[in-house]
Amino acid sequence: DTLTHFDSMGQAHMVDVGDKHSTHRIAVATGAIYMSARAFEHLQPNVNKKGDVLGIARIAAIGGTKQTAQLIPLCHPLALTRVAVEFELDEINLSVRIEVTAETVGRTGVEMEALTGVSVGLLTIYDMLKAVDKGMRIQDIQLQAKSGGRSGKWVRDSAS
Amino acid sequence: DTLTHFDSMGQAHMVDVGDKHSTHRIAVATGAIYMSARAFEHLQPNVNKKGDVLGIARIAAIGGTKQTAQLIPLCHPLALTRVAVEFELDEINLSVRIEVTAETVGRTGVEMEALTGVSVGLLTIYDMLKAVDKGMRIQDIQLQAKSGGRSGKWVRDSAS
Amino acid sequence: DTLTHFDSMGQAHMVDVGDKHSTHRIAVATGAIYMSARAFEHLQPNVNKKGDVLGIARIAAIGGTKQTAQLIPLCHPLALTRVAVEFELDEINLSVRIEVTAETVGRTGVEMEALTGVSVGLLTIYDMLKAVDKGMRIQDIQLQAKSGGRSGKWVRDSAS
Amino acid sequence: DTLTHFDSMGQAHMVDVGDKHSTHRIAVATGAIYMSARAFEHLQPNVNKKGDVLGIARIAAIGGTKQTAQLIPLCHPLALTRVAVEFELDEINLSVRIEVTAETVGRTGVEMEALTGVSVGLLTIYDMLKAVDKGMRIQDIQLQAKSGGRSGKWVRDSAS
Amino acid sequence: DTLTHFDSMGQAHMVDVGDKHSTHRIAVATGAIYMSARAFEHLQPNVNKKGDVLGIARIAAIGGTKQTAQLIPLCHPLALTRVAVEFELDEINLSVRIEVTAETVGRTGVEMEALTGVSVGLLTIYDMLKAVDKGMRIQDIQLQAKSGGRSGKWVRDSAS
Amino acid sequence: DTLTHFDSMGQAHMVDVGDKHSTHRIAVATGAIYMSARAFEHLQPNVNKKGDVLGIARIAAIGGTKQTAQLIPLCHPLALTRVAVEFELDEINLSVRIEVTAETVGRTGVEMEALTGVSVGLLTIYDMLKAVDKGMRIQDIQLQAKSGGRSGKWVRDSAS
Repeated sequence: DTLTHFDSMGQAHMVDVGDKHSTHRIAVATGAIYMSARAFEHLQPNVNKKGDVLGIARIAAIGGTKQTAQLIPLCHPLALTRVAVEFELDEINLSVRIEVTAETVGRTGVEMEALTGVSVGLLTIYDMLKAVDKGMRIQDIQLQAKSGGRSGKWVRDSAS
Repeated sequence: DTLTHFDSMGQAHMVDVGDKHSTHRIAVATGAIYMSARAFEHLQPNVNKKGDVLGIARIAAIGGTKQTAQLIPLCHPLALTRVAVEFELDEINLSVRIEVTAETVGRTGVEMEALTGVSVGLLTIYDMLKAVDKGMRIQDIQLQAKSGGRSGKWVRDSAS
Repeated sequence: DTLTHFDSMGQAHMVDVGDKHSTHRIAVATGAIYMSARAFEHLQPNVNKKGDVLGIARIAAIGGTKQTAQLIPLCHPLALTRVAVEFELDEINLSVRIEVTAETVGRTGVEMEALTGVSVGLLTIYDMLKAVDKGMRIQDIQLQAKSGGRSGKWVRDSAS
Repeated sequence: DTLTHFDSMGQAHMVDVGDKHSTHRIAVATGAIYMSARAFEHLQPNVNKKGDVLGIARIAAIGGTKQTAQLIPLCHPLALTRVAVEFELDEINLSVRIEVTAETVGRTGVEMEALTGVSVGLLTIYDMLKAVDKGMRIQDIQLQAKSGGRSGKWVRDSAS
Repeated sequence: DTLTHFDSMGQAHMVDVGDKHSTHRIAVATGAIYMSARAFEHLQPNVNKKGDVLGIARIAAIGGTKQTAQLIPLCHPLALTRVAVEFELDEINLSVRIEVTAETVGRTGVEMEALTGVSVGLLTIYDMLKAVDKGMRIQDIQLQAKSGGRSGKWVRDSAS
Repeated sequence: DTLTHFDSMGQAHMVDVGDKHSTHRIAVATGAIYMSARAFEHLQPNVNKKGDVLGIARIAAIGGTKQTAQLIPLCHPLALTRVAVEFELDEINLSVRIEVTAETVGRTGVEMEALTGVSVGLLTIYDMLKAVDKGMRIQDIQLQAKSGGRSGKWVRDSAS
């Protein structure tokens, strides 16, 4: 039961993936941001002349996936082959859910890229709306599924 | 009730802060990551030979604050004058809480820097421990307090 | 008549601005991209379900201004206080004109930031539309005006 | 006739290239900058003690190709296998023409890398010479040819 | 006897590696920093409550390897598959030796990545300890061995 | 006798400089690279058609100073006001000495910027010449002098 990011002496390293097969890898991560009714109004797509908060957050999320290896110390740099970002508005709970799918053909998984995309997308929504609500809260950033690589497919237990 | 990141036409811009006073600005943000007992064990400081997960996450959080303007599209670049990161282990709820304090002397607030530091710190913990628990969940990324600037002091309502 | 980016020996350096006054500096730059009618169609704002090419190019232009000192070898790093981006569609000539205004309060001008923003904005439009027209042409990237600093105000000769 | 950078809903994404073949891809792009006679003088290679403007612009152009995926929002990150930069002085029209060739072995084309290299190279010439001529104009940034990948070879129509 | 980073005209380029085989490449580089006894004390692992200088320098060294292509103008960007960092304290000579091993599976060697990791690791030690000793000296940054690629194995002559 | 980069608990932080005065700060650092006669030949300025190794290393050194805060974990980001790079060839010892001067007007010193510039400059020389000599050795990276700030002027003891 060891952490792969540490060697047998407990020293951090970028773990060797040179022997791993180059396979198609996919990761899906999600998260949400909860806000006041006043802030939520600004996300309505049909409100005229309002700025496109979610469009900008989508671009930021994609940009975040590309900067993952610069942010997470032991992450391997890798060449993403696909990134997609979906938003879902929840009018009852006054929240936006973001889902980021990241893919590559390579030797390492893309979980961190998907999770970083989620985080940067939500932070960008916060930044865009903080003039009307500083108290927004980011919740439930988590991996939903991954596939590819030696460890194969993993899907989040729906009960969690 | 307008969003400062959009002009009167609803177009995104980096808002003019040239006329703002250069003041001492502080922001404190927090967040947490929840995990399995097996993952939590790896965070115990007194366990010998285990790698220093939180020490690495602290460095990543500080690094994240410095990359904020590259990640958040409409954020102003700024020169931080202080960044501090604290972790608190919660053995009952099997979680780690991170608190990031960011400071500057300048024309714009540092809320986004503090929040980005929190996010990158938590993502790094996820990365370090994901070999033993892919299901970890990041929660409650939020601003706790800010001071400085025209809008002055803001403190999170303790009930929220 | 010397180039400020070289010393008396002809060696490149980042020129000393430590003695310059910190003043409000503004630069406005423009450029345009010419394309086929088929590509131009995709820029019409009232076409339903089409992606928001110009909205994305605006974000890219702002991002480009922030990366100027990493791209241009002898540019001083600086903290922008405002960036604004305007687009103008020219249906007759099948082109889009971009205008970027950059501002700072500091010791160096922001001409390069404005020009870099223009360039990155136009390159992004190219990238978004290249699936329908690889032959697009970027034209007339130029400074329109600058103010602030020792050299004061400069405005482009309207005849040029 | 759809833009590949948008999905069927009109939402931006980094398009899936995971199924594309990894082939040898080449792109050649060009551009030019027009200036006053006084600025042009500084480019003469045989003038003694003058700084090496074009040598620095060449390095900047190569650096620009490497930062393309950080600048252009929906560009895939990729590993360039070759970058070459040529300059041509036009004494009659007082301009410098730059040609950048970018190559990779991969799943996506390198048009944007070549065009970004051209842009950064020309911006750097502007920066180096702006002390003597603020009115310089960047013109004709365009793709000349590309090869490799599913869409195969494309060469600019010489009439354009 | 030509420098590969220049073409036949003496112009810098990113040399063509498109025809090279993708092989497993390893490079090992070392270096050291010499300091006062007072600074050296702060590196003792068994001293209580002292900050973890070497742990932070290790993370910085790994980060440095990932930024190599942004720092060294003609370096090819590449995807590292492993990075490991070792420190050795020399109590007699009051120095720390760092060894960085970098690996990839690709078309270009990783000597520069290993050497950059060494440099950034040593600079970070300097930064952490400079409050007690500004006179520290970095010495002997050098390649120890490389393997993989057309030129094959190279090992430093032990006499040097 | 504490390290400023750690708090009283031994935890790393970006130390508070908000109360420090904004003063003119200068740092000068040096270093050298030793090589074979065959490699040294390529540095002779009067050899025709050889590429400009030192010109490129100078640009890289300047670029390195600008990336210091991204490389050194606890460094404050700052806006350099001047960077100058000098090379000196030593034909007897077959080495090149580099001297980097960095300046700012701000709250933190620029020692790390000068030292990082030296390191990146020397690494670039290594990269340019490694095709003819892999055994080159980087030596004596050290601070020569600094001024400005609370701790005032410091000059290296000439005996060291």
